[in-house]
Amino acid sequence: MSDVIKQYLVKDEPYYRPVADEVALYEAAYSVRMPMMLKGPTGCGKTRFVEYMAWKLGKPLITVACNEDMTASDLVGRFLLDAQGTHWQDGPLTTAARHGAICYLDEVVEARQDTTVVIHPLTDNRRVLPLEKKGELVNAHPDFQLVISYNPGYQSLMKDLKQSTKQRFGALDFNYPESKIETEIVSHETEVDPATAGKLVSIAERARNLKGHGLDEGISTRMLIYAGNLIAKGVNVHAACRMALVRPITDDPDMRDALDAAVVTFFEK
Amino acid sequence: MSDVIKQYLVKDEPYYRPVADEVALYEAAYSVRMPMMLKGPTGCGKTRFVEYMAWKLGKPLITVACNEDMTASDLVGRFLLDAQGTHWQDGPLTTAARHGAICYLDEVVEARQDTTVVIHPLTDNRRVLPLEKKGELVNAHPDFQLVISYNPGYQSLMKDLKQSTKQRFGALDFNYPESKIETEIVSHETEVDPATAGKLVSIAERARNLKGHGLDEGISTRMLIYAGNLIAKGVNVHAACRMALVRPITDDPDMRDALDAAVVTFFEK
Amino acid sequence: MSDVIKQYLVKDEPYYRPVADEVALYEAAYSVRMPMMLKGPTGCGKTRFVEYMAWKLGKPLITVACNEDMTASDLVGRFLLDAQGTHWQDGPLTTAARHGAICYLDEVVEARQDTTVVIHPLTDNRRVLPLEKKGELVNAHPDFQLVISYNPGYQSLMKDLKQSTKQRFGALDFNYPESKIETEIVSHETEVDPATAGKLVSIAERARNLKGHGLDEGISTRMLIYAGNLIAKGVNVHAACRMALVRPITDDPDMRDALDAAVVTFFEK
Amino acid sequence: MSDVIKQYLVKDEPYYRPVADEVALYEAAYSVRMPMMLKGPTGCGKTRFVEYMAWKLGKPLITVACNEDMTASDLVGRFLLDAQGTHWQDGPLTTAARHGAICYLDEVVEARQDTTVVIHPLTDNRRVLPLEKKGELVNAHPDFQLVISYNPGYQSLMKDLKQSTKQRFGALDFNYPESKIETEIVSHETEVDPATAGKLVSIAERARNLKGHGLDEGISTRMLIYAGNLIAKGVNVHAACRMALVRPITDDPDMRDALDAAVVTFFEK
Amino acid sequence: MSDVIKQYLVKDEPYYRPVADEVALYEAAYSVRMPMMLKGPTGCGKTRFVEYMAWKLGKPLITVACNEDMTASDLVGRFLLDAQGTHWQDGPLTTAARHGAICYLDEVVEARQDTTVVIHPLTDNRRVLPLEKKGELVNAHPDFQLVISYNPGYQSLMKDLKQSTKQRFGALDFNYPESKIETEIVSHETEVDPATAGKLVSIAERARNLKGHGLDEGISTRMLIYAGNLIAKGVNVHAACRMALVRPITDDPDMRDALDAAVVTFFEK
Amino acid sequence: MSDVIKQYLVKDEPYYRPVADEVALYEAAYSVRMPMMLKGPTGCGKTRFVEYMAWKLGKPLITVACNEDMTASDLVGRFLLDAQGTHWQDGPLTTAARHGAICYLDEVVEARQDTTVVIHPLTDNRRVLPLEKKGELVNAHPDFQLVISYNPGYQSLMKDLKQSTKQRFGALDFNYPESKIETEIVSHETEVDPATAGKLVSIAERARNLKGHGLDEGISTRMLIYAGNLIAKGVNVHAACRMALVRPITDDPDMRDALDAAVVTFFEK
Repeated sequence: MSDVIKQYLVKDEPYYRPVADEVALYEAAYSVRMPMMLKGPTGCGKTRFVEYMAWKLGKPLITVACNEDMTASDLVGRFLLDAQGTHWQDGPLTTAARHGAICYLDEVVEARQDTTVVIHPLTDNRRVLPLEKKGELVNAHPDFQLVISYNPGYQSLMKDLKQSTKQRFGALDFNYPESKIETEIVSHETEVDPATAGKLVSIAERARNLKGHGLDEGISTRMLIYAGNLIAKGVNVHAACRMALVRPITDDPDMRDALDAAVVTFFEK
Repeated sequence: MSDVIKQYLVKDEPYYRPVADEVALYEAAYSVRMPMMLKGPTGCGKTRFVEYMAWKLGKPLITVACNEDMTASDLVGRFLLDAQGTHWQDGPLTTAARHGAICYLDEVVEARQDTTVVIHPLTDNRRVLPLEKKGELVNAHPDFQLVISYNPGYQSLMKDLKQSTKQRFGALDFNYPESKIETEIVSHETEVDPATAGKLVSIAERARNLKGHGLDEGISTRMLIYAGNLIAKGVNVHAACRMALVRPITDDPDMRDALDAAVVTFFEK
Repeated sequence: MSDVIKQYLVKDEPYYRPVADEVALYEAAYSVRMPMMLKGPTGCGKTRFVEYMAWKLGKPLITVACNEDMTASDLVGRFLLDAQGTHWQDGPLTTAARHGAICYLDEVVEARQDTTVVIHPLTDNRRVLPLEKKGELVNAHPDFQLVISYNPGYQSLMKDLKQSTKQRFGALDFNYPESKIETEIVSHETEVDPATAGKLVSIAERARNLKGHGLDEGISTRMLIYAGNLIAKGVNVHAACRMALVRPITDDPDMRDALDAAVVTFFEK
Repeated sequence: MSDVIKQYLVKDEPYYRPVADEVALYEAAYSVRMPMMLKGPTGCGKTRFVEYMAWKLGKPLITVACNEDMTASDLVGRFLLDAQGTHWQDGPLTTAARHGAICYLDEVVEARQDTTVVIHPLTDNRRVLPLEKKGELVNAHPDFQLVISYNPGYQSLMKDLKQSTKQRFGALDFNYPESKIETEIVSHETEVDPATAGKLVSIAERARNLKGHGLDEGISTRMLIYAGNLIAKGVNVHAACRMALVRPITDDPDMRDALDAAVVTFFEK
Repeated sequence: MSDVIKQYLVKDEPYYRPVADEVALYEAAYSVRMPMMLKGPTGCGKTRFVEYMAWKLGKPLITVACNEDMTASDLVGRFLLDAQGTHWQDGPLTTAARHGAICYLDEVVEARQDTTVVIHPLTDNRRVLPLEKKGELVNAHPDFQLVISYNPGYQSLMKDLKQSTKQRFGALDFNYPESKIETEIVSHETEVDPATAGKLVSIAERARNLKGHGLDEGISTRMLIYAGNLIAKGVNVHAACRMALVRPITDDPDMRDALDAAVVTFFEK
Repeated sequence: MSDVIKQYLVKDEPYYRPVADEVALYEAAYSVRMPMMLKGPTGCGKTRFVEYMAWKLGKPLITVACNEDMTASDLVGRFLLDAQGTHWQDGPLTTAARHGAICYLDEVVEARQDTTVVIHPLTDNRRVLPLEKKGELVNAHPDFQLVISYNPGYQSLMKDLKQSTKQRFGALDFNYPESKIETEIVSHETEVDPATAGKLVSIAERARNLKGHGLDEGISTRMLIYAGNLIAKGVNVHAACRMALVRPITDDPDMRDALDAAVVTFFEK
């Protein structure tokens, strides 16, 4: 393996609690190098899953957080000036394609079209990346795979992936794990006891039911872990929930009251 | 042939299954170097066709995936700085025009106008490319031909080719192949048996009928090949279809149910 | 004549078939160096006319295809960096003005205002071009003339030439030539016999009558020449017309049927 | 006088035919260095007037055609790179302020706000120009004066001078000259006899009455001179008027008929 | 501690008057390095609080005032050119992450998305900052913490933090302190006596009740300190209140009268 | 005092006629270095006031005319390239903060948000200016003060200062001076006698009453001085008023008649 990408190897096994057959399906997809799209709400574990799969497959992982001001050059690379003139610097996508990493484009729908279109020749049977500015045609390394994430509840009319992009990917759905599994995750990731973890999960489930009824998004697994961490540090459970679960997601006084009341309910049981 | 473009020769015969007289028509168009426009939905084989023709004609093929942030300089070239000052770097269109390749501008309608207009002098009887920034007038090589692709179901009011651009091209229509041919293609490209391939094609045809009735695009031939690849790797047919055919194109629960039901129907027969 | 612009001399007499007194009027306009505006639909011969006149007057011709992303610097010139620092590179307009060529700005209405306004001082009695970035005032060479083209059916509310620009030009109207002349042109430019050429012209005339009734533009003379070329190569007339005349200008099924029917009608007579 | 601006001296007396007391008023304005705004329709002689006044006062004249893509740096100057590093290059406004020329900003309303605001400190009693990028405060030369032109029939809601800009200028109104004077001008500038010149003026007056009734602008004095020039070259009067007066300003068939009829009427008398 | 960030240590204890358990909660959050979001109206003490906490924790504080024209490079860093070619210059976020400071992004909602998204990998369990342009993956220093401020009454439909950003932060609410505490603050920060400070606080409270009824924002604690400073310098209380409290926040004559009357009322008691 | 800013000292006492206690209030504000906002219509003397105060306090004054295309770098500074590589060039705000000048941002509401937000850390008790691109934190010189001007009748919905900016400034209202004082000013600044000056003031007052009833702004004191200057040079009073008072502010024929009539009325008395 090239030294350039050894730093991107996931060294320790990330904690990932499978919820269905997603690990096997991903392995099959990787075996045919099918580009993959991970769909699901924010904070439900997509990033963790891809880290886990990269570790399991023993492949380096290069992650790029996409945004609307990112240009194709940010992905592909650019000429830089030095004392000897200009030299070409590979971008993260080119590094992954050339040396054989998994390239994970997080929230790809945020990117401008030139970012999105640049991946097309890497996602059909050609598996090439033309570096037009350099006049080079990079043939993807056999280990290279492209993965993108996508939050379906998110995209507006203005911002959606083009059909000709979507059709280039296999898709896996993700969601918050079911109650028992999520409790297991929260107590594994923090130092709170399973009973407390279970109560946090119950609060989250109540909030998720309010999605679309005054909340834009529910409380994610990641937020539960934040709350658990504070509780483990000795912070009062009500203060911890207020700070980590309620205040971040809503400024509406009624909604805050409803969520604060849920905290009281579950932690007085 | 110039060394610069030898890397763009298509080395192995790409698999292409003709559906009508498109190969002969393209050869005639090439013989008079008529610029060509390939029209049709995403994933129906336009890119494969042009690769096949390039291989058949023995000409190098330079492909550019167009996008709305691409500038004329990305096509034509630019000055780069090095230790000796600036030097000119030909862009892909200039390389093709100067050395005699087929230049394929994929989804040209996505490009900005300056990209589109820059091709005008190459598409009438002058066959020249003025490099205004360099003060050079490139006379196209006798082998040079320009090809663009275009998805007619796609363009909005905001984005369409100008009439003065359209009129510079001969046009060939493409569509998904008819059932028998598409089955042949799917079983050729994957390792599934013709019966399974036929079922996949039937699912795709049902989905294509839903285009405009809840689906933006149908299931493409490329997606069928993805599904076939997964099945050949031992993935359960339902899981393979869910992952490769249904999840990528819709997030609507009713539509997903309808398509999942179609999968069940065909694979239980 | 300066070496710089000798490459822009039109070496061979371009084929141009006059339709009225446009050649004499242009010569008079050139004799007083009146800036000229050539008005007419796409593909009717404006570019060919200006090439013919340049050849007839023995003056070099520098053509610029205007577009909305072109800047004033693309016309006027810019500083480039080399090993000795920066040096000034004349743009095409400056080259024409300094050395005495005819400068033809094709589809000038597409350009941004700074491109358009930059020509003002060259179009009144001052005949100067201020290179503000260089601090130089170029006095136009006595042979210099400015010509622009303009498609009146084209401009939207958003894009039109300013009155203060229009008033700086004399104007000549162009249109598709009348039937007999156009037949002569098509058979001259291709190798089809006059009868076939005449049928192609009849199809074009039918399509031009549909302009505004479902077609944005009619079929141009250039398209007829494409069709003729294919027929001369042995392509079936129906296939040639479909590919070169009908498919490029419309995707509407009814309109395609109507035009295909016209092809059948004329070629069965 | 500095060598830098000697090239901007108006060498020969420009032909200018005064219509009222505008020459005396301008001289008074210049004597107190009051910034001036010349108001009036396109092609009525504002540019010629300022050239005449510059000649009469013996001051160099630096003219800038403003446009919406012009930046403040285009007026004020910028750093350029050369072999010794960067050096500052004065823009036209700075050149005029530093060395004492009249600076004429033509159609200033087209410019972006940064261009417009940059002139403020030159138009009140401070008479300074801060070169912020260079860290220099240029005190205007005693001979410096700023003049702008402005077409009141032109500005849209989107584009108008700010009140805080307008209030910094004295204003002079311009219009097309009255019939007798305009005839005198046309015969002076071309070689047509006064009778022909008078007929051209009559046609223009008829067109000017149509302004707002189907024409955006009338026929300007400059256009009459173009027509006269063609007639003097032997072009038929009807062809000359069609080419120089009618075709440039309208594509509306009824309006063209009306104006062509006016030409016939006056030239058959 | 690295020399680079020693200059960002808060040398003297900033005056901060706690209003509830916010100091303890912040310490718990810092102990688990939870990213924090400080919510509250303008001028209520969020910036002072974070300075106080940085001092209390003995950590350097790097503050960035966000704005809509700030790019990701402004946060992360960029290549600069020097005599030896280019060298990389860390931006403030990178400096904080690399060397272990608290990074405070003030009014983060004003920033463009690329600024906002760039912080994501620093706010989950990875705690990394990918410098894509440099090809380096910065692992955050153990002391690093990210803090953002956010004014909930402020954000429009166009500008709000994405849910996937909000969910990465614990949140603390801030508001103007209650009457007694605010009086204590104003007399501590200025040299006015508690009675005068109390009157200033009463005026502010009246103005805060008018928020949403003609005032966009109430009078902040900071404005009271300005008024107190002027009074301590001997300025008449009415003039001081007019200048520091009323004139800055409203131009509406009725609202000014109402606020001026409140000043009279309280200072005549 | 640093040599860099000595050039910004106001050498001669500017003529300023106080209208109330504004001089004393400003001195108090400066003594506590309170940032100041000068509010009032265009041309009423805000700029002159700040020049007078700078002279009176013996501090250098750096004035920046803000505009919507000005960037934060225009205020703060940037890296420039020279033979030794890049060097940093302080912008006007940094020069003022570093060396202790009064920095006057004229019409700050025109600036983009990044310009506006950049001043925040200079306007609270930190009094620092972070040069993020340079990685330097400038502590403001004890003599530094920030002053901005603001025309309340001006700002649209699109363009207004943010509340979090407004609250950082004390505010002083300005308006056209009352009749007697303005007469005194006009005769002091021109060489006309007090009677003529008084008539000019009466005309201005009439025009100011028309503000909002057909005029966007009234006639400013500066315009009266222009008119007086012309009259002192011997220009006829009616011509002088037309040129300096009426024509610059309106193109509406009725409004011009009304104002011209006012001129006649007052100068025939």
